Order: sequence, then structure tokens, then C-alpha cells
Amino acid sequence: MFDAKADDRAMWATRTSGEIVSTAREDGSVLVLPVGSIEQHGNHLPVATDTILAHEISALGVERVVDEIPVLLLPPLWSGYSPHHLTFGGTVSLEFDHLLAVLEDVVATALENGFDAVVLVNGHGGNQSAIDGAVSTIGTDHDDVEVLGVTYFQLARSFIDDVRDSELGGMGHGGEFETSLMLYLYEQLVRRDELNGTYLDEPYDLGDEDLLVGGPLAVYRDFDEYSETGAIGDPGLATAEKGEQIYELLGDELERFLRSVHRRNA
Amino acid sequence: MFDAKADDRAMWATRTSGEIVSTAREDGSVLVLPVGSIEQHGNHLPVATDTILAHEISALGVERVVDEIPVLLLPPLWSGYSPHHLTFGGTVSLEFDHLLAVLEDVVATALENGFDAVVLVNGHGGNQSAIDGAVSTIGTDHDDVEVLGVTYFQLARSFIDDVRDSELGGMGHGGEFETSLMLYLYEQLVRRDELNGTYLDEPYDLGDEDLLVGGPLAVYRDFDEYSETGAIGDPGLATAEKGEQIYELLGDELERFLRSVHRRNA
Amino acid sequence: MFDAKADDRAMWATRTSGEIVSTAREDGSVLVLPVGSIEQHGNHLPVATDTILAHEISALGVERVVDEIPVLLLPPLWSGYSPHHLTFGGTVSLEFDHLLAVLEDVVATALENGFDAVVLVNGHGGNQSAIDGAVSTIGTDHDDVEVLGVTYFQLARSFIDDVRDSELGGMGHGGEFETSLMLYLYEQLVRRDELNGTYLDEPYDLGDEDLLVGGPLAVYRDFDEYSETGAIGDPGLATAEKGEQIYELLGDELERFLRSVHRRNA
Amino acid sequence: MFDAKADDRAMWATRTSGEIVSTAREDGSVLVLPVGSIEQHGNHLPVATDTILAHEISALGVERVVDEIPVLLLPPLWSGYSPHHLTFGGTVSLEFDHLLAVLEDVVATALENGFDAVVLVNGHGGNQSAIDGAVSTIGTDHDDVEVLGVTYFQLARSFIDDVRDSELGGMGHGGEFETSLMLYLYEQLVRRDELNGTYLDEPYDLGDEDLLVGGPLAVYRDFDEYSETGAIGDPGLATAEKGEQIYELLGDELERFLRSVHRRNA
Amino acid sequence: MFDAKADDRAMWATRTSGEIVSTAREDGSVLVLPVGSIEQHGNHLPVATDTILAHEISALGVERVVDEIPVLLLPPLWSGYSPHHLTFGGTVSLEFDHLLAVLEDVVATALENGFDAVVLVNGHGGNQSAIDGAVSTIGTDHDDVEVLGVTYFQLARSFIDDVRDSELGGMGHGGEFETSLMLYLYEQLVRRDELNGTYLDEPYDLGDEDLLVGGPLAVYRDFDEYSETGAIGDPGLATAEKGEQIYELLGDELERFLRSVHRRNA
Amino acid sequence: MFDAKADDRAMWATRTSGEIVSTAREDGSVLVLPVGSIEQHGNHLPVATDTILAHEISALGVERVVDEIPVLLLPPLWSGYSPHHLTFGGTVSLEFDHLLAVLEDVVATALENGFDAVVLVNGHGGNQSAIDGAVSTIGTDHDDVEVLGVTYFQLARSFIDDVRDSELGGMGHGGEFETSLMLYLYEQLVRRDELNGTYLDEPYDLGDEDLLVGGPLAVYRDFDEYSETGAIGDPGLATAEKGEQIYELLGDELERFLRSVHRRNA
Repeated sequence: MFDAKADDRAMWATRTSGEIVSTAREDGSVLVLPVGSIEQHGNHLPVATDTILAHEISALGVERVVDEIPVLLLPPLWSGYSPHHLTFGGTVSLEFDHLLAVLEDVVATALENGFDAVVLVNGHGGNQSAIDGAVSTIGTDHDDVEVLGVTYFQLARSFIDDVRDSELGGMGHGGEFETSLMLYLYEQLVRRDELNGTYLDEPYDLGDEDLLVGGPLAVYRDFDEYSETGAIGDPGLATAEKGEQIYELLGDELERFLRSVHRRNA
Repeated sequence: MFDAKADDRAMWATRTSGEIVSTAREDGSVLVLPVGSIEQHGNHLPVATDTILAHEISALGVERVVDEIPVLLLPPLWSGYSPHHLTFGGTVSLEFDHLLAVLEDVVATALENGFDAVVLVNGHGGNQSAIDGAVSTIGTDHDDVEVLGVTYFQLARSFIDDVRDSELGGMGHGGEFETSLMLYLYEQLVRRDELNGTYLDEPYDLGDEDLLVGGPLAVYRDFDEYSETGAIGDPGLATAEKGEQIYELLGDELERFLRSVHRRNA
Repeated sequence: MFDAKADDRAMWATRTSGEIVSTAREDGSVLVLPVGSIEQHGNHLPVATDTILAHEISALGVERVVDEIPVLLLPPLWSGYSPHHLTFGGTVSLEFDHLLAVLEDVVATALENGFDAVVLVNGHGGNQSAIDGAVSTIGTDHDDVEVLGVTYFQLARSFIDDVRDSELGGMGHGGEFETSLMLYLYEQLVRRDELNGTYLDEPYDLGDEDLLVGGPLAVYRDFDEYSETGAIGDPGLATAEKGEQIYELLGDELERFLRSVHRRNA
Repeated sequence: MFDAKADDRAMWATRTSGEIVSTAREDGSVLVLPVGSIEQHGNHLPVATDTILAHEISALGVERVVDEIPVLLLPPLWSGYSPHHLTFGGTVSLEFDHLLAVLEDVVATALENGFDAVVLVNGHGGNQSAIDGAVSTIGTDHDDVEVLGVTYFQLARSFIDDVRDSELGGMGHGGEFETSLMLYLYEQLVRRDELNGTYLDEPYDLGDEDLLVGGPLAVYRDFDEYSETGAIGDPGLATAEKGEQIYELLGDELERFLRSVHRRNA
Repeated sequence: MFDAKADDRAMWATRTSGEIVSTAREDGSVLVLPVGSIEQHGNHLPVATDTILAHEISALGVERVVDEIPVLLLPPLWSGYSPHHLTFGGTVSLEFDHLLAVLEDVVATALENGFDAVVLVNGHGGNQSAIDGAVSTIGTDHDDVEVLGVTYFQLARSFIDDVRDSELGGMGHGGEFETSLMLYLYEQLVRRDELNGTYLDEPYDLGDEDLLVGGPLAVYRDFDEYSETGAIGDPGLATAEKGEQIYELLGDELERFLRSVHRRNA
Repeated sequence: MFDAKADDRAMWATRTSGEIVSTAREDGSVLVLPVGSIEQHGNHLPVATDTILAHEISALGVERVVDEIPVLLLPPLWSGYSPHHLTFGGTVSLEFDHLLAVLEDVVATALENGFDAVVLVNGHGGNQSAIDGAVSTIGTDHDDVEVLGVTYFQLARSFIDDVRDSELGGMGHGGEFETSLMLYLYEQLVRRDELNGTYLDEPYDLGDEDLLVGGPLAVYRDFDEYSETGAIGDPGLATAEKGEQIYELLGDELERFLRSVHRRNA
């Protein structure tokens, strides 16, 4: 279902117990956990988009470093926090504190194998505060492990202006950014005749302006207040070429980051 | 990572929001949720075995009925309850009540789309009481939905004597049964030179005698009390042929069951 | 209220603090906790039937071994999990996770006295998954104690075919089995002119066929879907003679089991 | 095990579902729930003393009014909150919030039958704050029911000076008061050659001076700070005659109270 | 907002980290935590009355002893438990178990600095059972710390008969007692033309008769059952002079108590 | 203790029940809740710095709009989430989920008065994810209320470059920014001879560079890994003049924001 693959050596799910222990005990070992969601993504993208992309980017980063770094990739957690999408169908969501509990339990038991660091790679904006919270609660409980979290699309901050065609607000939920990535990676899952979204128009100046240009304001809004289709941004500007470019640049960023995590904790 | 596929129409993850709602609202619609685990499976099987098999059998059953029944298959939950495997490596486990909470949240939000029935298809013995508990707590909260749970390998009770070569105790955790299925479905993931397990030898007469011959006794035991490799049963007797046979017969059972669920709730 | 009595030496409630410690510290000591419920039992049986019977059978087993084994019997927990009976009156139920918490707390504090093993003796089908879950969560927390659970009526599997008069489905909730036991033990509590029930008719082939012939299916159903009176099975076939026979045979089973628990953990 | 009996009509446990509903629906119906504990009570009293006495006094009060008032008596909850007794053996305790949850669940489901009032009759000082808390949380959730709680021995405030022989501090945990009641009701359970306790000597002026003369101070102290035997007060002054006198006077108080509860809520 | 001030040396909030540690490590150090609430207080008193008064009395007691005793005063917790006041406006309330959790967390982390004792000074009757519960749960977790709790107005039991003008029932929620204190301390916050309340009239003989004359009965009642204005007692009898007298006498009581706590734990 | 004051009309704590209801029911009413913490702030700042500043800025914003907008200011919540400061003394912290619960309860009960919007004004970086989480969980439960959160110092993003003297990394925990504000508002609380901190030096490129220049990375680190004194940034560059300038500009920002919240929800 989630097809992303890195080198076999890095895939937790398909390794044996003993093989996992052996990698985890190496010096500077890093555990990577993709965290996504299942939620409406407009009329053109599959509901698992955030899980798929968190998983794909994680797998790409891991693939890039597996020859040099002891690293293991857990399967993606697809049960995220998405109450703001429930008015549309197709959405599955945990309670906030249950997502926190799952993150804590999964990481705590995985860390028993002996990792020096763990990186949560999030794919869904609505998960962000739970991820950040979990980084703190997990960090508090594991003094000797480096506990880190990042939302994968935030890694594009450094390069996105060179890539995008849309104005601010065109890269939102199911907009130019995510749709381009999906066109590159899973073209067959994109409904090409449904590429409709609404530019992000948060009413407060302090609010977010784009997937990648956040404001200081936290606001709760059912997504039907933003968009009729459920998609925010301009999916019509998406192309597979742009998707490939974003994919490779995200891979560069994550690769660089994973190397620095390994180095610092070896 | 979890490669099982049924017909596209039945795959929740890759459908859009609107498509899911449309199926869920049909008469007699059925939601299927595979629940697995990630835990040591001896030296010969990958740690995701229970997730993989719960997913594969679920997908097979769904594939068999998708032409006639409105049915949707969620991705497999791979975070189960496996504290008894933690002394071996490679195991990831939720707390018992957190697994319960995840099952309740996932099903509750998914049911909002309008299903008439939900079937939890479990792949891990250690999940059984959480699954059974969740069937009750979910059932209590959803008067108008038929809430059901089944551990897939229990569906083999009716035919297993005709298939097995091992004595009682040979079909345990990573034994003849699971290893045969994995040899048929994912031969490349089976470490053929590590096919070692220990026949199940629960000290009490009232205890389980086999994966498929349970006793009335509930007992908690770290798996290193049962087996040095972590595997219980006789994986050496496993063959891909037997795996195919079991796979098809399980498919028959699940197909029959899904049809009856649909019929009764249409 | 719950009149079952074993030898004074074995009754936790009526012993002093120091006497309890002294027994618990003996080699191979066993703690027994009956767990019942208070719930409708048709028009002919009192609502505490499950608590009464779990208590009586536990006390019988304990009485049989008290001369040779250091054993203590806690009073029966009468607050079980019975949401499926609430549509009838007279039912009292804990939330599922609260029952789990009570079991964990009671056993954890009782074990502080030094027992080598604990056996939960359950009397209510609806408690089963909580009991099984508690065996795991308690076991996880107490490495050096043997943690066990059994539903007393499952001990009749080995002999019931020789005793019963009803067809499959006749031994259900308040059916031939429970009513016979109550007629033998507490005849005055049985309303003889209300011995009406409905044979168990679970619509799925995979479902339970009888109190003692379970199927692999977990299903949630308010009891008014099964029966108008609330009783399932055939109480009309119940006799005190059968009750005595069942009682003694259950005593044999439990005695044998308690001896093996003691032996294995001495 | 807990032998107290009121008139059959009032005993929840031994009535049928339909009989309970019928009483609960009468005008001004009252539900009574005794709450005790299992905890060390010195070397002379059984550990269930608080449960036994809460139950006996409740049953007595109920017996006195059953002819005129629709009233039902639940079995005593014996799992209380007693962490301060755990250093002695024989003690079983719930976590504070689990006791609260049990009280809330039991009462909430029992009230579904239609009672107009509920009275928690507590027998253990350590339960007091959980009982008081539960009265509030239950009251908040049941607008149309009168929710009340009382610790039975506080009912003796009005008459105890006429009965007691001990100085202040002589009626504590297992002291003259409780031991007298037990001598009257269950002489066979009192170890007469172990009637030793220590007068209550709380170091702060603001603290309690006696079971029945409380101060404004809340203090947490393991009971081994107060007493070597675990008993506080002067059990040596206890007599069965005094026990009978206290018993009857408590019955008068509770009878009067239950009548006023009924009157006010009819 | 809460203006009470003791000597700078005793104010936790305005000291630095190092200064706090230094005081806490002294022999016989005492931590004081005022706990109030925000809830309707009739038409004449501000909603923060209970927080203000718990804080003022705590600060007074601390001020009196700071020269001789290592003592620190935390800011007042203003989020209490007040569901019974919600039908009136202006009330803010935690769930019961959340108040308990806050008390446990705040005290547990504060105690890490090395205090020998902690005193919770409560200002709201509705908090009492949570405070008492917290004293137990905190005490259970901190063997080496003296854990104490007191409701400040209960300290007036010893002298109130010499001060009061009202009959029994005139000192209730926002009555003669609290209004006098507020007139003395914060006259500008008292609405002098709204000094209306209703004498306490709890229907049961076993209930409270006054703020300072409690009965054994716990009862839950929305405050609109007692009083139309929300105030109970006779605020019309309040004077600033009486307020000063009460204030000083409470200060004497608390001073004496804090000295004894220090002495006993040095 | 927390001295910030806005116009009396806006102060929840000192108003009466009826006055609060009256304001809350006006059209476009806004509730403001400052959320701070008590935690080490280096050797030069008091531990309540974050509470003090969140409160002061909130009060300033409220003061600016109270003539035109129905607005109420709750007292500051001083119990935040600060486990990363516990290795230094003087820190008090809630568990993450308890902070979430407190925010949810306080806001839920306050909203019962009829507000159209609520703004959480946070003063502590470590609270951020709990605040963001609470905005979502509260928003989910209150469809008809605008739920918003902002960390006050993030409001300085727009102007800080014109004000600061320090390089990036000089405005951290207790650095140039917070110290300047404290020198302006509470000079007497700043220990002028202890103005020592360490420039922020987060080892990862993706990490935060400054209080006001965040990176996408979430990382958990005990603060003793960053700084010997506990302060991060350059408090030596702080001045009261700069503090005033920042204070007024923050007031402008918050005023503008509160006006827009009112307008949008009137």
C-alpha cells in the first residue's frame, strides 16, 4: 500500500529481530519514523497523500545514507490528527493525546534496541503540535538519545522560491507542492480532471500565508471554511517535472540532516 | 512496504474523499481494518510478519467480493501489543490501552462515512484481547453498526488438519503455518537457513496447544521462556505449496464471511 | 451477600494482616481472585449470578487444596464489564479500561505480600477480554510472578457433553448450565416459574455456538437482540442434580490446576 | 464472605433484573452503596473490617426502612484507597483516580434504573476524599438525582461521648469503636489476645484527635509512623455490649437519614 | 492581579532559580502553595475571592515566619473545581481529576528543589476533596517529605464564635466571613449596594450548618438551589473591622502552624 | 504577584459573575488567556518571567481596546510545560497532557459565558506545542467560537531587526529581548550583576537560530546543554529603553490583532 522502498538493509519491517538489534547497536545509529495521516485531499489526491509523501521522502533520505550510516526506517504511521478534515469524507483521525501516546510508545519500544538518535519525519500540518509535543515528552524520558522531529515539507523552505510557479497561498493542502510530488511519484493516483483548489486566504495577518510561509498565529478552522473542494492552493500548476525537482532537493536536505545527526551522536 | 493489493476500488488509502463516501453510503457497506504488529519472529521471518499476513488475507477476502459488495480496506495498523516479545529485539509495542484507543478512534472516524458494518482482521495473538475489547467498546458506541472482529488464522480451524504436517505445537509463532504463508507470498523475506523453532510446550494442561488449538487458560510469558530463537513451532516443515493452499482456503473463509456480513446488514 | 466459604485459613477478607503475609511468603504461594459481574440474568436468576458462581467455584477449588498449598482467596470483584446487558435493568458495569485498572491495582497491591502466582477466576463472558488483557499487563509488570486467568465455565469443556441435556445453544447466559449450578447452590434464589430463555442463535457461522463452544468471531450485540427475557439457552432443562455434578467436576478441574500452579512455582 | 443481610426485597445482588427496575421506578427510590476497603487492621481485626462494617450498618439502615421506602442495597465495594497501610501486609488498594472511576461507573449504570437518590455509605477514612469527590462528579453528571455520601462512623458524633470509655485518641483505626462493633457482630473474627493499639498522636494541633473528632488538617502518613501494630486507639476497652449499643444507635441515625432522603425526593 | 506580598525572600515567582534552590536546601524548609478558584461569589464579591483570600492569608503566614524559617510561597493556583457554580456566570473550573493532576505535578516538580515539607493552603470548599486527595497521592510518592493541606477558613474554628455577628448559616459562600475579609483587604472590589445572600439551609440534619460548622454529609447541589444571588450567608453583617480581626487571627494560626511544621521537619 | 493591570472593566478576576456574563454576551466579545510558566531564567531574571511578560503584553493589548471592544482578561496561567529546565532549580512544570487538559477545561468553562472568540497569549517557547494542540482540541469542541493562539514574542518578528543590537542567537531564553522588557517593566527584579548568557548554538542547521528566527527542526535538549547559567542569548545588551520600545510595538501588534478578531466575529 505504501510502496516507498529504501535499501533492504534499512527497512525495519522486513528485517529480522537480530538484524535490527545489530544495526541499532552500531555507533551513531539513527531511527527514522515517518508520520502521516489519512484525510481528504481535495477531489484530485488520494486520502493517504501525507502518509505516502512522508514515507517517500524518508525512504529517499535513508536510501542516500544507508551505505555509510547505521539507519533503520520504520513503516509510516498513517493514523494522524485530522479533526479539521472530518467534515469531508475519507478522513480517519486519532484524538490528539492518543496520537501522542502512540508516538511515545512506538519510539520508546523501538529505542530499546539501542539507537543513538531518532528522527520523526512528519507529513501533515495538523500533526505538527503532536510531533513537537512528542519530541519533548520522548526527550524527557530518554536522556541518552537525541530526539528530533521535522515536517518534511518545511525542508523546502530553502529552495522553494526557485521552484514554485504559484503565488503565495498556492502551496497549501493538496496544492502545487503536494500535487507535483504525487504526479512525479504516483501519477496514476492523481485525478487529473479534478485539479481544483482555493488559494489560502487566512483572514488574519498573523496567520499562515502558505504551506511554507507560516505566521505566528495558531487557528482552528474546519477545512470547509477555506475551500469547497477541500484542497487549498493551486494544484493546476503542478507538474511531474516540478515534483521530481522538489523530490530530489528534499532528498538532499534530508540526506544532509541525517548525516549531521549521525555525526553528532556517533 | 505492505504490498498487498486488492482491486483499486476497495483501497481506502488511494481513493479520494468523495469516492470513499460514495462507497460507504451504499447499502450493506463493509469496512475492513487489518491489525498486525511488529515483533520478533524468530531468526527466519521479518518482524512485520503479522502485519503482512493480516493485510494479505484481508486484501484477498476483499478482492474476492469487491465486484458485488461495497467494501473498503484500510491500511494495516502495524502498531500492536507485544510486550512479551520485547526481550528479543526488533519489537515495537503500544501499551494495551493505547492500542484500544487507536482502534476506537480509527474506527469511530472511519464509520462517520456511513458504513453498515466493520470487521477488524487481526494477525497477532497478543492483540486478541485488545481486539475483542475494542469490538465491545466500539459496539457500545455505535448502535447502528455491526461491529465484528476475527483473528485471521483462527479461520483455518476448519481445514488445518488436512493441511498440516506438524504435530500439535508445530504451528506457533513463526512455525509451520506462518512460515508457509510467507514462503508463498514473500519468499525473499524468509531466511531459509534459519528455519528453527521450538514446539509449543505450555506447562499447563489448560493452556494453548497450538496456534489453532487454544485452551481456556490465559497466561503471560516472555517468549524467551518458550523458545531460544523466538520462534515457536516447526518452521522447517513449511513449504510454499502449503502456504498457497492455506492462503486460498483462508480466502474462501473470509470471502464467505464478508458476504454474510454484507447480506445481514444490507 | 456472597456466601461461599473455603477453609478459614484461605479467606483473605477475614484474616489479619500478619496472617496473610505469613501465607503469602510460603514457597509456591497462590493468590486467587474471583471476578464476576452484576447484570440481568433473565427473569429467573439473580443479577449477581456470575459473581456468585465465580466465587463458589473458586472457593471450592481453594478448599480442596488448602491443606497442602499456601493459598489465599480474595473476595469476588462484582463490578465487571456488561454494557451489552444495560438495556435490561439491574445491570451495573464499569468502563472497559476501568475494569482493567481495578484488576491491575488489586493484583499489584496484593502481590506485594509475596505470592509466587496469581489466578484470576472469571465468571462472566463479557469480562473475558479485560481479564486476558489484565493477565498481560499484570504479567508485564511482575516478572517474577506467574500470572494466570481462566473463565471458570470453560473448565467444563472436558466433561460437559456427558452432562448436558440441551442441544448446542442451550447453555448460554442463564441457560441450562448456570441455572443448574444455581439450583444446586442457591435454590431459593431461582424463580422456578420463570425458567424461560432463547437458544443461542448467533447469525454468523464463525460466532459462538454455546457458552462452551466458542467460535473465532468477536461480535458486539445488545442482549435484547438475542433474547426477549435476557436469558440465552434452555433453563428449563436445569436440575439441581446436574448442578451438583457440574459443581464437583469443576472443583476437580480447578483443584488439579491449582496444584499444578503451586508445583510449577514452588 | 460479607454476611450482612437486609430484607430480601432490598438486596440488589439477589434480585432479578425486572424486580430491580420495578423498585427503582417507585417514587422517592433510594440506592445505597456501601464502600469499604481491605487493609491491615492491627493484629486483632480482619483486613475486611471496614467493608464488613460499612456493609452491616448499611444493611441495618435499609432493613429498618424497607417496608416503607423503595430502597435497594448494592453489595459492598471492597476495593478502596489505602496506600498508607501498604507497609503492613494484607492491604489491597486502588489508585485514587481508579477508585473515583469505579464509584462513578457503578453509580452511573445503577442510576439508569430510575432512582431518585443515591447514598454512598463509606467505611474507611482513607476513602473519604474519593467519596466526596465522587459525590461531586456524579452529582454534576446527574442533575435529576440527589447524590449523597456519608462515612458511617461520623454518624456516631452525636452519641459517642455517652458510650466511649477511652480518652480522645482511643477511637482510631481498629480502636475501641471498630473493635466493639466487630465483637458484637463477628466475635469469631476478633483475635482477643492481640487487642493492642497506640493512642492517636498526630503531632500537629490542627490534626485529627480521634476517629470522630477531626481537625482541619489533611496529612499523609504511613501508618507505621503512628503505630507498631497498625492499630490506633484502645481496642482493649472494646466490648460486645458497647458494640451492640453503637450498632443500634448508628441504625437509628441511618434510618432517620434514609427516611429524610426519601421524603425530600419523593 | 493577585497583590498579596510577603517578604521578597519568600516569593517564589520573583526569585531566581539559584535563590530558590538555596532556600529549599536549608534544614526544615517549607513550601507553601495557595489554591483558590474563580467562581461566582454573589453580586457583591469578585469571582477571584477564594484565590485572593487563600493567597493573602498564605502570604501573611509566610511573612510572619520568613525571618526564622526557610519558606517559599508559590503563586496562587486560581483554577479550582467549581462545577456547582457554573449555572451562574463568571465561573471557571477544572475537571476534578485535572485539578488533582495539576496539584501533583506542581508540587512534585517544586519538591525537586529539596523541601522538607509542603503545605497546600486551600481557599475554596469545593476544592477540599481534591486537596485532601492530592495530599495522599503526593504523600504516597514522596516518602521523605511531610505533605500537608489545610483550608484556610477552617483555621478560624477556634475563634470565630468570638467574632461573628451572624447566626449559624450566616457565614457561607460570600457571607459575613469572606465579605469582611474582602472589605478589609480590597474594599474597592466589594459592591456595597449588592450585599445580599441567603442563610445556608441544607435540608439534611447531617449537612453543613455553616462555612465553619460542617456536618458529616457530602452532598452535591448546584448553587442556585441554595441562593438566588449565588451568595450564602449574611454579607450585610460584614465590616472591615471584623475583617481585620479575622485576618490577624488567621495569621496567628497559620504562623503557629508553619512554625510547628518547620520544627518537626528540621 | 502578577501586577499587570488593564482597565478594571476587562479584568475577569476582579469582576462579579453578573458583570462577566454581561460583557461576554456582547457582540464580538473576546476572551484573552495569558499562559506562562515558572522556570529558571538564568541568574539574572526571576523564574516567573514568562508569566509576567505574557500577562503584561496581554494586559497592554486589552487596555488599548477595552473602550471599543467587549473583552475580558483571565489571570495568567503560571503552570506551564518546562521539563527541559528542571535540571536547574526553581522550575515548576506540568506534564504535557495535563497542561493541555487545564487549557481545555479553563477555556471550555469560560466560554460558557458566551464569548465569540478566545485568544491564548503564550509567553514560553516550551508551551508552544501544547498551546497549538489546545487550539485544535478546543476548536474541535466549540464550532461556533473562533479559537486562536499566539506566542507574544513572535509578534516582534515584524520589527525586531530595527530594535536589536545582538547578533542572531542573542535573543534567546533570558537574552536581550526578555531582559530588556523586564528592565523596563520590573527593573527591581533584574539582578544587574548577573547578566550572563550564552549565544544560542543549536548544532543543527535546521534548528532555531534565535527566539524570533525559528527553524523547522524540533529538538529536545536539557537547557544545561546550551548554557551554564541557564540563560541563552546576550542579556548584557539589554536596556530599559529598548524594553519600552519593544513593549509599545508589541502593544501595537496585539491591539491590531484583537481589533481584527473582534471585527471578524462581531
